[in-house]
Amino acid sequence: MNEAASRALPVQDARIYPKGGLDVLSRAEVARLRDASAGGMHELLRRCALAVLTSGSASDDPRAARDLYPDFDVHVTQQDRGVRIDLKNAPAMAFVDGEIIRGVAELLFAVVRDLAWTAIELGPDCIEDLETSAGITNAVFGLLRNARILRPSEPNLVVCWGGHSINREEYLYTKQVGYELGLRGLDICTGCGPGAMKGPMKGATIAHAKQRRRTTRYIGITEPGIIAAESPNPIVNHLVIMPDIEKRLEAFVRMGHGIIVFPGGVGTAEEILYLLGILLREENAGLPFPLILSGPTGAAPYFEQIDKFIRLTLGEEAASRYEIVIGDPVAVAKKMTAGIRKVREYRIAQKDSFYFNWAIDVPLEYQQPFVPTHEKMAALDLHHGRPAPALAADLRRAFSGIVAGNVKEDGMRRIEEFGPFLIHGDAAMMQALDALLRAFVEQRRMKIAGEYRPCYRVVT
Amino acid sequence: MNEAASRALPVQDARIYPKGGLDVLSRAEVARLRDASAGGMHELLRRCALAVLTSGSASDDPRAARDLYPDFDVHVTQQDRGVRIDLKNAPAMAFVDGEIIRGVAELLFAVVRDLAWTAIELGPDCIEDLETSAGITNAVFGLLRNARILRPSEPNLVVCWGGHSINREEYLYTKQVGYELGLRGLDICTGCGPGAMKGPMKGATIAHAKQRRRTTRYIGITEPGIIAAESPNPIVNHLVIMPDIEKRLEAFVRMGHGIIVFPGGVGTAEEILYLLGILLREENAGLPFPLILSGPTGAAPYFEQIDKFIRLTLGEEAASRYEIVIGDPVAVAKKMTAGIRKVREYRIAQKDSFYFNWAIDVPLEYQQPFVPTHEKMAALDLHHGRPAPALAADLRRAFSGIVAGNVKEDGMRRIEEFGPFLIHGDAAMMQALDALLRAFVEQRRMKIAGEYRPCYRVVT
Amino acid sequence: MNEAASRALPVQDARIYPKGGLDVLSRAEVARLRDASAGGMHELLRRCALAVLTSGSASDDPRAARDLYPDFDVHVTQQDRGVRIDLKNAPAMAFVDGEIIRGVAELLFAVVRDLAWTAIELGPDCIEDLETSAGITNAVFGLLRNARILRPSEPNLVVCWGGHSINREEYLYTKQVGYELGLRGLDICTGCGPGAMKGPMKGATIAHAKQRRRTTRYIGITEPGIIAAESPNPIVNHLVIMPDIEKRLEAFVRMGHGIIVFPGGVGTAEEILYLLGILLREENAGLPFPLILSGPTGAAPYFEQIDKFIRLTLGEEAASRYEIVIGDPVAVAKKMTAGIRKVREYRIAQKDSFYFNWAIDVPLEYQQPFVPTHEKMAALDLHHGRPAPALAADLRRAFSGIVAGNVKEDGMRRIEEFGPFLIHGDAAMMQALDALLRAFVEQRRMKIAGEYRPCYRVVT
Amino acid sequence: MNEAASRALPVQDARIYPKGGLDVLSRAEVARLRDASAGGMHELLRRCALAVLTSGSASDDPRAARDLYPDFDVHVTQQDRGVRIDLKNAPAMAFVDGEIIRGVAELLFAVVRDLAWTAIELGPDCIEDLETSAGITNAVFGLLRNARILRPSEPNLVVCWGGHSINREEYLYTKQVGYELGLRGLDICTGCGPGAMKGPMKGATIAHAKQRRRTTRYIGITEPGIIAAESPNPIVNHLVIMPDIEKRLEAFVRMGHGIIVFPGGVGTAEEILYLLGILLREENAGLPFPLILSGPTGAAPYFEQIDKFIRLTLGEEAASRYEIVIGDPVAVAKKMTAGIRKVREYRIAQKDSFYFNWAIDVPLEYQQPFVPTHEKMAALDLHHGRPAPALAADLRRAFSGIVAGNVKEDGMRRIEEFGPFLIHGDAAMMQALDALLRAFVEQRRMKIAGEYRPCYRVVT
Repeated sequence: MNEAASRALPVQDARIYPKGGLDVLSRAEVARLRDASAGGMHELLRRCALAVLTSGSASDDPRAARDLYPDFDVHVTQQDRGVRIDLKNAPAMAFVDGEIIRGVAELLFAVVRDLAWTAIELGPDCIEDLETSAGITNAVFGLLRNARILRPSEPNLVVCWGGHSINREEYLYTKQVGYELGLRGLDICTGCGPGAMKGPMKGATIAHAKQRRRTTRYIGITEPGIIAAESPNPIVNHLVIMPDIEKRLEAFVRMGHGIIVFPGGVGTAEEILYLLGILLREENAGLPFPLILSGPTGAAPYFEQIDKFIRLTLGEEAASRYEIVIGDPVAVAKKMTAGIRKVREYRIAQKDSFYFNWAIDVPLEYQQPFVPTHEKMAALDLHHGRPAPALAADLRRAFSGIVAGNVKEDGMRRIEEFGPFLIHGDAAMMQALDALLRAFVEQRRMKIAGEYRPCYRVVT
Repeated sequence: MNEAASRALPVQDARIYPKGGLDVLSRAEVARLRDASAGGMHELLRRCALAVLTSGSASDDPRAARDLYPDFDVHVTQQDRGVRIDLKNAPAMAFVDGEIIRGVAELLFAVVRDLAWTAIELGPDCIEDLETSAGITNAVFGLLRNARILRPSEPNLVVCWGGHSINREEYLYTKQVGYELGLRGLDICTGCGPGAMKGPMKGATIAHAKQRRRTTRYIGITEPGIIAAESPNPIVNHLVIMPDIEKRLEAFVRMGHGIIVFPGGVGTAEEILYLLGILLREENAGLPFPLILSGPTGAAPYFEQIDKFIRLTLGEEAASRYEIVIGDPVAVAKKMTAGIRKVREYRIAQKDSFYFNWAIDVPLEYQQPFVPTHEKMAALDLHHGRPAPALAADLRRAFSGIVAGNVKEDGMRRIEEFGPFLIHGDAAMMQALDALLRAFVEQRRMKIAGEYRPCYRVVT
Repeated sequence: MNEAASRALPVQDARIYPKGGLDVLSRAEVARLRDASAGGMHELLRRCALAVLTSGSASDDPRAARDLYPDFDVHVTQQDRGVRIDLKNAPAMAFVDGEIIRGVAELLFAVVRDLAWTAIELGPDCIEDLETSAGITNAVFGLLRNARILRPSEPNLVVCWGGHSINREEYLYTKQVGYELGLRGLDICTGCGPGAMKGPMKGATIAHAKQRRRTTRYIGITEPGIIAAESPNPIVNHLVIMPDIEKRLEAFVRMGHGIIVFPGGVGTAEEILYLLGILLREENAGLPFPLILSGPTGAAPYFEQIDKFIRLTLGEEAASRYEIVIGDPVAVAKKMTAGIRKVREYRIAQKDSFYFNWAIDVPLEYQQPFVPTHEKMAALDLHHGRPAPALAADLRRAFSGIVAGNVKEDGMRRIEEFGPFLIHGDAAMMQALDALLRAFVEQRRMKIAGEYRPCYRVVT
Repeated sequence: MNEAASRALPVQDARIYPKGGLDVLSRAEVARLRDASAGGMHELLRRCALAVLTSGSASDDPRAARDLYPDFDVHVTQQDRGVRIDLKNAPAMAFVDGEIIRGVAELLFAVVRDLAWTAIELGPDCIEDLETSAGITNAVFGLLRNARILRPSEPNLVVCWGGHSINREEYLYTKQVGYELGLRGLDICTGCGPGAMKGPMKGATIAHAKQRRRTTRYIGITEPGIIAAESPNPIVNHLVIMPDIEKRLEAFVRMGHGIIVFPGGVGTAEEILYLLGILLREENAGLPFPLILSGPTGAAPYFEQIDKFIRLTLGEEAASRYEIVIGDPVAVAKKMTAGIRKVREYRIAQKDSFYFNWAIDVPLEYQQPFVPTHEKMAALDLHHGRPAPALAADLRRAFSGIVAGNVKEDGMRRIEEFGPFLIHGDAAMMQALDALLRAFVEQRRMKIAGEYRPCYRVVT
């Protein structure tokens, strides 16, 4: 027994039955689900289940939960009228007086639902559909629809991006912004971890209570690689696990009616570059897409740095696509409300749906999974002169690789084995990149706890 | 312009938008739906749409509605946030002061939904799945789930079979039975035409109102060949159009928790034989399945005749599978309630679902569509000595062919062209069959209006 | 034991607990309710309870139910969390397999609620409030509000008046009108007995189902003297027992947004005269109040007679207040819809509420209970030359007395003891009255069963 | 214009219409409401309205809001279908982009509703009912029922008492306790100001969201004298304004199924003594009433002091009625859950209602309003040897007077005019009292801001 286990965190066994959602499955689907969860998908299921069962925990170490609950296991079984989830040695923190917290149970079933969908619909039979851009978009749509979060209601979904490791001033600021958004009837969608992904939801919860809004959406969109490090808060009442980073990013962009970026680290930088790369495409030139970068007064230097980096790498046009608002939650909420009003008008004019942004063009290179091996990281082409969208795509990949090296299991293992990634590029660009990354380190945006050892090296 | 049109029934144009259900479609689905409805499926859509728009009409002539509304047309178009149905020269009877009756609009969208599902999911890409028994059952499940009528609630669904052309005493009796079922909290599922398919729903509506039941199900299951002749009553709040007779029958058998058979004609005889053939299989020996044949006192001779015919052809064991109750609606409802209680216990014991009878074994020969050509009708093997299920299957097909010759367009055309079907078999069996059919004619169970000219000839 | 009891109708005992409504009572209220129901009010409670428990029965003999259930008794007791109703030897027809029909239970609690309110709020402490017109109107308002049927929704309540004893053609016609009203989203309020009080509700139930209206109101307004003879149909989902005829009539007039009068007998004539007397007052001159007299073609002579009688007695102006529509349910529904639209506009302009017609002036002489003794009946002043409202008031009282002599216990007893009422008046008016009453007798509108022996004599 | 106004806080005008609740009023009621609000009650209405419009503000100075919004005014007017509230120069903080926050609007209508009920039902006509204990209890019941917070649901209402001025550690602790209560499905009722009255509600809001509880109750019970100083948090979704302190205390005791006392000042001490005085009565000896005194570790000395004071003044028996739990929110929630279970059993056994504790005996001396004049304060009889309930009553009054002198307008005025209250009693008791009060001052529990100048003097 390892040391962690000897800490003897309290655990308990349980049997969980779904409410709604998973009930009406065909026998074949239940069998497939059970097989998948017993077979190759089992480890993935176990990891994701543990993440939601420790939801609310503040660690970003994907291995921590597993060390703390080494004997945890989960099984999906066929039950008379549907499925049942059996938990062994599950974290007691997910229970109240022996009963699982209802929100946690819902997240648990969301995990099973999404992994099943992925296994069934994106399995070997349908793989060829994923080779075209339209096919991938359709898969994203299918998964979101299956998660029942696409609803024909008025546009009101604000995606909030930002770091999981932010300081208290920044965290309180995200709560205030969430509060102001909530007062204006806006729902929240985030990556569903701690920090900037939790603050806006908490603020909105209080505001929604004040406005007596009863049907509210706190959507968390995650992916198997990140969920273990960014355990979803149980305020999240809709959780979706997309199969990979790229589909997760596409889900944000197609579901959100506007995006607010709070201070963050490399993950947040990856998200900004992904979105700007897409918005800078000629096909998306006329598309309204409210994008606000915001933080408290103390975060002003942070955004200046980001702004400078974007202008340097992607040019002034890129900077025209966003607005920076410092220390003014009411202004953020008002600007977002106004921006969403324009999105609404545009969708009506274009006969596009409210719940899914079909019109935005996301090219295949933004959709195909990027697996950050040392070779691929070294092959990134970070030079001036490339078209902004192509350069943004590679910059996005660079940051994505660093995120993996920081907090994802596969990435961390690779770094341990082969040393830091080498990233090549123009001297000026590399200098800017290095400065940005160093600032993240200094501002402690890379990791929640412990000393940060860079997983990359910049080479000019 | 034909004579019918000159009768100048009032018509009107309209644009209908769906509530719920059809809203969240992918672009590809909407396009496919539009294409299908504009292409080969258009005539089918037009026919089914007209049936629901004339719902409540008492005619069973599939061509009548089309003669009365020769200029009627329907188009499915892509609308900003989903689909839209455009109606041209639609029957004014579907509208109140220019507004479509909401129940009719729901049925209309159910038509589009089911035809779309059939076109997409049972289209050329998936055709091979329909070659196995499990594949067909899965298709039935998929269509019913897509229609959102599979719900994880307590077993309470009574299927009522019986003729569309029944006398007043019989009709009132079906209402009384429906009333007693409704008082006991049971929901109704029928073939959704007039007569015995409407009476139980009307009776249950009053009883449900008295019992203050607010979430009630009046499910109509039909198929393209019959819908035009058996226009759904708008009390029906869930309409499903199965692709063919055999899937419709399987839907009844897998969804219903018990079945009541009222007096009817050949269609009803077809249904009884279908069900008995299945129940007589060894695989289904232990399966509880409440089956009650019931009618008013005046219908006693009718059921004696049916009973005799079944005993003669399928044997005494077949007769042990049903109970005949004459003139006692309360007894019918009590027996059905008791029977469903047993079904419930069995499902729990077998870990089967409440909403879909996975356990009942329906063999491929009962699932494959039977197209009643003169050759196939002549080839039926109606001789003693065959196993009861096999014989029941062929008897079922014989009745099915006669239904087609009576009220379905294709069948009627064939009879007009080639004369009556010839049906071969044992002398005794043929005599019994002939006697039964003649009785149906005498009792005016074949057609609602006009003189009946037999579409078959029995040959020993 | 009397003969009726020996018929041995099935009975059963039961304990009923309220859902909602009666739950939150103070101890004092529960005690008062229990005392009242054990004391002087007990016989009244017993009678009303029996009426709702035999609801659906077609008899109009107030003593019949009691003869059939001589051992029936009811007690209200204080229960841990509210009140409980104990039934002894209650009619089995109110139960399904031992469980009370939920709608019947609701009506039963409505009876207790209203009798309690009357006992408490209109009891000796508050009696002085009932000596002014405003005080009585306030009492009517209070009772209706306590019954929770005053709701701030759009005007859509149609009051249907008409006979309990009508022929089949007339009954079907009332159903058709109810159906057309229901299709147009209108709710129904009647006196809640059989015949014209039941037909419109049944028709509307089917139409509301077709229009998928889920929150519908079928309001029955009755009074202790009439409830035993006009047992409420359990489609009634809101029952109110007003303390006397006059408050019942005021409730109709203040709650309804329009009134349809179907063929009926003296009770219906009483209602028409009551309403016209009020509408003819100068104070109500500008008030929109849709009033439609309607029946099937066969009822045309009936309405001609009524029309003639009104023109003769109250003058042409009175006739301008109503419209007669024969054999056209759609026209009735359209006119009513248009009329209610005007009522809506008027209320908004006058800042009057939608749910209670405060603006209509009902004078004290229309509000004070009229107890038809032989002296009071003989004292009625039925002569030309009186102002129409005053004459209408006395004519109304004449009909009211005849209703009492026909179907109310007190009245029937008085007639048995002292012989028929004598009614004095102008020769012409008396002739017209006599002709009208004779026609009612001939058309069998006085009683459902048996030979009618007039309870009045006209004296010129 | 005074200095405060010159600070020019933003204001706006608005017209507010009620949703539900106040809609169905009689004309007489609306007129009375309008008259009352225009007449003597106007200043009271203005004060209470301002309190809810500034809800969330942290000041406990009742005059602060009025100084900040000197031109604020409110009028109730009769509107076509009910009432309307007109606001002039209302605090902009109650609005979001010009629209009033819905929760604030609800509180505003609650203010009007309760003041109207008090004016009408407790007005001169009914005053004699308030001279008996049963009459006062009935008035409390009537007001709570009129506020629609008495519901026949399972016992789950926890009353939380404690100071408005508490330190951050204590505040976070109240949130944690609220969170644990919320996880266990318990609803919260407080005095609805800041501090310990807000924390439990905030914690429970998050827990209820996690448990997906959608129908939750955050009840605030206040009175006109305190509302201005303890502005209700808009999480409060049910606000009731009782006419005076004593009825407010009785409402807490009769509605709550258990009470938790957090650290507080004199107001909290008043509440503890009130409750203990009642529980120590012989009549209430067997009554289960969970009472837990709890705070974070830092509050341990505070509770020791309170405990000592109670044991000294009321004896050991009094101490047996409560439990002190330090620094363990989970234990508090578990003990409360267990305690409420016993309350539930007791109520069922005693046939008492769940929503109102009829059984607890509250004598008249605890119900009659105590107006703390200098004479009355001087006349309090604080000597050993008196029966505990009587002594508790006078101790309660002593604290009540000090609360008034601290934060209520009338009391503050009296102190300014006549100097501190003199309180007489046994030397030991007076010493203990003085020590307790001094501790409150030292711990800054008397006032949120500024230096505290005692409003009392202890005299032995």
